[in-house]
Amino acid sequence: MELLKKYIVEKGKVLPGNVLKVDSFLNHQLDIGLYQEIGREFKKRFAKEPISKILTIEASGIGLACITAQYFGNVPVVFAKKFSANNLASEVYESKVFSYTKNEYYQIRVDKKYLSRKDNILIIDDFLANGNAVLGLLDIAKQAGANIAGVGIVIEKSFQTGREKILKENVRLESLARIRSLEGGQIVFTD
Amino acid sequence: MELLKKYIVEKGKVLPGNVLKVDSFLNHQLDIGLYQEIGREFKKRFAKEPISKILTIEASGIGLACITAQYFGNVPVVFAKKFSANNLASEVYESKVFSYTKNEYYQIRVDKKYLSRKDNILIIDDFLANGNAVLGLLDIAKQAGANIAGVGIVIEKSFQTGREKILKENVRLESLARIRSLEGGQIVFTD
Repeated sequence: MELLKKYIVEKGKVLPGNVLKVDSFLNHQLDIGLYQEIGREFKKRFAKEPISKILTIEASGIGLACITAQYFGNVPVVFAKKFSANNLASEVYESKVFSYTKNEYYQIRVDKKYLSRKDNILIIDDFLANGNAVLGLLDIAKQAGANIAGVGIVIEKSFQTGREKILKENVRLESLARIRSLEGGQIVFTD
Repeated sequence: MELLKKYIVEKGKVLPGNVLKVDSFLNHQLDIGLYQEIGREFKKRFAKEPISKILTIEASGIGLACITAQYFGNVPVVFAKKFSANNLASEVYESKVFSYTKNEYYQIRVDKKYLSRKDNILIIDDFLANGNAVLGLLDIAKQAGANIAGVGIVIEKSFQTGREKILKENVRLESLARIRSLEGGQIVFTD
């Protein structure tokens, strides 16, 4: 998606440790015009899928999922909530996720009422790096018996293991910008 | 807002301790058609204000703020992030918020780059109860020297202290549904 790449190159910042900071438009201050273009692009890529719900995870995924849902006929958005590990709950689907940023496990949860085997789910998130959050969402969707139409990611760090892990699950993955390298502070896309 | 009240009455659940659960449409599963009506209503109520940014707090406020921003000419959304108290940071506006739900303090933060004295801010959140989160956002907006056009709330628990605290700050408050009582599991609106 050319507009997105333009934003990343012009407004993104590469920090030490292969960190790409895009908080001026994607995940702290949110550019709603860009969000709409992202939503339209996801619709284009999943146009043939009769999506019934969009599943995402707090916090940055929520705005993207809400704007995107408008282009899928206002389907409901469900967002998984994060909890400290070992916090008990019933009537929820849950999965354990390892955070590399925080170097700890957390649990993500969705109330069983809001996902079922009748659903055809599109999973949306802002970033794909090691893929652990998305794997947790896939786990939850499977527990619900839902069909997974695919995963839509805004920015993929293709030099990390997330893509590989998702494809291993036989799930379709669409990333709107794929970054091959951030070495030396240089943003290099895969295509 | 009649449509919202209808949703609350038909889909909301009152739990012990004056808890109103609206997670089937407002803050876990999100009804995007309703979100659009909420956004239109906020625009109607703040139509005369030249809003430059919408400020909210993670997580439930984000989707509402993004959809609402579309009716204000796609102004940027900025969301405050929550951190455990005493976690240091620079270059941010921060405020301390007490959570009654968790019985602990946390800090909320906004990068200084994304709020300034040139801004005319609309603060949006899903719930107003004790008002502590909104007071934290007001504090941050003031630190930035921004003008505060007002606060837009979806559901106000009018029997708690939030409204009073916000009005004491001389800030305009618009709540789309005001609940006077949840006693005995009965939802009673103020008007």
